[in-house]
Amino acid sequence: MIDAAHHPAVEPLAFLLGRWRGEGKGEYPTIEPFVYGEEIEFSHNGRPFLFYVQKTWNPVDGYPMHSETGYLRPVAEGRVELVLAQPSGITEILAGTVSGSRIELTSTLVGVSPTAKQVSAVKRMISVTGTTLSYQLDMAAVGQDLSIHLHADLEKVLGP
Amino acid sequence: MIDAAHHPAVEPLAFLLGRWRGEGKGEYPTIEPFVYGEEIEFSHNGRPFLFYVQKTWNPVDGYPMHSETGYLRPVAEGRVELVLAQPSGITEILAGTVSGSRIELTSTLVGVSPTAKQVSAVKRMISVTGTTLSYQLDMAAVGQDLSIHLHADLEKVLGP
Repeated sequence: MIDAAHHPAVEPLAFLLGRWRGEGKGEYPTIEPFVYGEEIEFSHNGRPFLFYVQKTWNPVDGYPMHSETGYLRPVAEGRVELVLAQPSGITEILAGTVSGSRIELTSTLVGVSPTAKQVSAVKRMISVTGTTLSYQLDMAAVGQDLSIHLHADLEKVLGP
Repeated sequence: MIDAAHHPAVEPLAFLLGRWRGEGKGEYPTIEPFVYGEEIEFSHNGRPFLFYVQKTWNPVDGYPMHSETGYLRPVAEGRVELVLAQPSGITEILAGTVSGSRIELTSTLVGVSPTAKQVSAVKRMISVTGTTLSYQLDMAAVGQDLSIHLHADLEKVLGP
């Protein structure tokens, strides 16, 4: 993304800008708990949205695990939408609120490709305190009710 | 994405790897024709998919226009899926074929956020001949039947 002035509409989301890195924990009723290294970046190009890209890796051997990418778009005072694509063949559309440095989103549509696993709903919370970005992802998938799946505390490694 | 060996599953898609740049043309029954500068990149990290990121800009003033990002995943011999997110609040899931250096995809699901414009179907063709990547995108949206919307010929500017 080019180095441009923030669009005024993204000012309420500027607390997310930059690169964040750390370790996360995964769990779900159907799997063994696991840990992962993670890096995410929020950037902007002067248009009224943020570009989001994320990757995780096995903390033992560094081999890539999950990744996802998409856009966070302010749509009204205190309201945001997040649209995501994942290499597992899943897309997410979420809508919710931004309040201070905390975002809470609930899926309005989870898309699955013809060969992807079934995911029916996702909730995402993202917050920043000081130089720490924390998030939690809850998911309803493969017949399970909405349950915690992922959470991490990431440290800022590169400013906006 | 890290510099890793190709996953064997992505070998049939290796002709896309690298960065491509050029100019495209847009049209649709509901709008005036327009031109745009464009850069796209396909990269990989050793997992069985390609990462895709695209941006366009106004060729007169360089100001960013459209962008999209996602993943291209081989799912079976000669079969691929593409999952995309767009800052306009739209997600696409497409499925289709790869034959030689030509990919043809038809949407199985187009997701729209609560505030996005209505898009009901998309077809995408991507082909590479020599150092030129050509694509065409057809779209059914805002009540119109499937019609040509975008096409471009881009030149390779950075190898895989």
